[in-house]
Amino acid sequence: MYELIKRDGLTKRGRFTTVHGVIETPVFMNVGTAAAIKGAVSTEDLNRIGTQVELSNTYHLHVRPGDEVVKKLGGLHKFMVWDKPILTDSGGFQVFSLAGLRKIKEEGVHFQSHIDGRKIFMGPEESMRIQSNLASTIAMAFDECPASTKDRDYIEKSVARTTRWLRRCKTEMERLNSLPDTINPDQMLFGINQGGILEDVRIAHAQAISELDLPGYAIGGLAVGESHEEMYRILDAVVPHLPLHKPTYLMGVGTPANILEAVERGVDFFDCVYPTRNGRHGHVYTNQGKLNLFNAKYELDDRPIEEGCQCPVCQKYSRAYIRHLLKAKEMLGMRFCVLHNLYFYNTMMEEIRQAIEEGRFKEYKKQKLAGMEQTKNV
Amino acid sequence: MYELIKRDGLTKRGRFTTVHGVIETPVFMNVGTAAAIKGAVSTEDLNRIGTQVELSNTYHLHVRPGDEVVKKLGGLHKFMVWDKPILTDSGGFQVFSLAGLRKIKEEGVHFQSHIDGRKIFMGPEESMRIQSNLASTIAMAFDECPASTKDRDYIEKSVARTTRWLRRCKTEMERLNSLPDTINPDQMLFGINQGGILEDVRIAHAQAISELDLPGYAIGGLAVGESHEEMYRILDAVVPHLPLHKPTYLMGVGTPANILEAVERGVDFFDCVYPTRNGRHGHVYTNQGKLNLFNAKYELDDRPIEEGCQCPVCQKYSRAYIRHLLKAKEMLGMRFCVLHNLYFYNTMMEEIRQAIEEGRFKEYKKQKLAGMEQTKNV
Repeated sequence: MYELIKRDGLTKRGRFTTVHGVIETPVFMNVGTAAAIKGAVSTEDLNRIGTQVELSNTYHLHVRPGDEVVKKLGGLHKFMVWDKPILTDSGGFQVFSLAGLRKIKEEGVHFQSHIDGRKIFMGPEESMRIQSNLASTIAMAFDECPASTKDRDYIEKSVARTTRWLRRCKTEMERLNSLPDTINPDQMLFGINQGGILEDVRIAHAQAISELDLPGYAIGGLAVGESHEEMYRILDAVVPHLPLHKPTYLMGVGTPANILEAVERGVDFFDCVYPTRNGRHGHVYTNQGKLNLFNAKYELDDRPIEEGCQCPVCQKYSRAYIRHLLKAKEMLGMRFCVLHNLYFYNTMMEEIRQAIEEGRFKEYKKQKLAGMEQTKNV
Repeated sequence: MYELIKRDGLTKRGRFTTVHGVIETPVFMNVGTAAAIKGAVSTEDLNRIGTQVELSNTYHLHVRPGDEVVKKLGGLHKFMVWDKPILTDSGGFQVFSLAGLRKIKEEGVHFQSHIDGRKIFMGPEESMRIQSNLASTIAMAFDECPASTKDRDYIEKSVARTTRWLRRCKTEMERLNSLPDTINPDQMLFGINQGGILEDVRIAHAQAISELDLPGYAIGGLAVGESHEEMYRILDAVVPHLPLHKPTYLMGVGTPANILEAVERGVDFFDCVYPTRNGRHGHVYTNQGKLNLFNAKYELDDRPIEEGCQCPVCQKYSRAYIRHLLKAKEMLGMRFCVLHNLYFYNTMMEEIRQAIEEGRFKEYKKQKLAGMEQTKNV
């Protein structure tokens, strides 16, 4: 299912075949939290900007419109009109970051919806059932993402529970995939490595979950407040203990520099809200650094966001026009910036794949970072 | 310049040739107030939904980004990346409806910007200079749009001043068009008929301004609070006194029913914010009536907004998905509804043109209205 095509140092150039098509890795998944890319971007647009995988959030969709509704409408692919792969997270991260008052027990978590305050219970089985209703290509395991401020004792107990939850996820997913009315009986489960910034806990956990022989593994609980150096140290430690011949997914990461560093350490799946969130604030990525299009110096700038960029926005519209739209609070300005930023990320991944294939990843990384550090005006 | 191709009763099927291309009438101009269609719709999108003319607002663009900025960037066409006709209003209506504290004098109007409160003066010459900087295809005369609550004495004096202002507009536009650095030396001026709901004042004013032999004439000051019946009565009275062989533009109108009634009375240019504003509120037009997509009954409705509709939204997305987007406050929901609504209006105008050509406008109008009155659930 996962073919390791080429390595260049520790980097992995992979090809992951799913029922919804092939994913060429390293890949950046484009985040559409509530089954839509924020910034008025549709799945039709995603097809124009090189998106391979769309990522939606289980917790958000469970709360609204409800996973039963999505199931009745034929699953997320039919709902959003997207025939390529979709990855759904497990809801775990949102339960711990967004939801109100919560209580963690062995069976799962009791919490309150951030929308209407109603009480919800979610454990491994519930998360799998919701994701099975959504019928994503890849489902993520239900885990706890402990705050990095927690002590060793808390983290060790949390990780042990996450391992027990993972076994329950696997059992439940196998059961769900065997039911006659399941929309995607080929739904895959990825395990998630946790352990805060404690290398020994991370490594032991990676080894334990690798034994379950799942189709892919993620590293969770990073990019949640620790320094970049701590994140890279954990990646140095843990990636070698995850299966080489399966996808390695670093959840919620990150800046272009973070991605380049993580690719160098063997990661091949990424997702992050940065390109969409930054775009909505008029911050756009270029190979010469990030630009803040609200800046007065773009008032009369008739160049595209990035000269030579092949995205649908740079093909037609100027910095001056987009700046005006942003200043006038016209949604179109956000849409343009989000489209450009996602195209920039997707294109960077394509460049990364090519650089790995051609055995020049280190050189590519160095050049890309040097270029992007030219402008620091955001 | 304006060719009257066919009449069916009082209806006019015209062809208006401009330096930015041909406008087939009756036409609905798509409103992009601040050089953008509200709801994240771009000029590239307009090309996909059958838009013939884009309309922008002089007052808004004068205040932000400034007409001097737009001129330096090559004019509105280059700024927005739109090569078809653009009509700009004169700013008059916004000065009287949006701006703060104002004082009307013979030379023009002193008022405060609704954005930052700064003092602005606008008279016929200033409006023409701003519109010349914007370099639209069609500029509108600077007029006063008196409140319909004003008495006969006020309205008669106001209309007389509007006539004097129109002569000044014409003189100034001719001067501007002759300058060497004018972006569009072929910019056209349309006069505007006023007179509230006083038929005799309207008729006398229509006759007076017709003598100026301008390339087109608008009827302003309607759809500002009077009843539909009063509007139709004024159209019955005044349209016959405007030149038959020039475009007749009913400003700011209206619902599909308003447009059908006005076409029947000989109007051939329209503009209105309804399709965009309603779209942003989830209200969408169909041949079976308007739908409110927030309604719970669409939760599981996997049909497009309108079955058989060829718009880019109906070709792919369901009512259930759009309802979810609107409920989740995803901008994409607004974008979809605005795109569909503009397509609906543009398509209705195409149907109207064909019906006039085929001498069956009355029959078409009757069927269209009967269909749209089926559902009254907004």
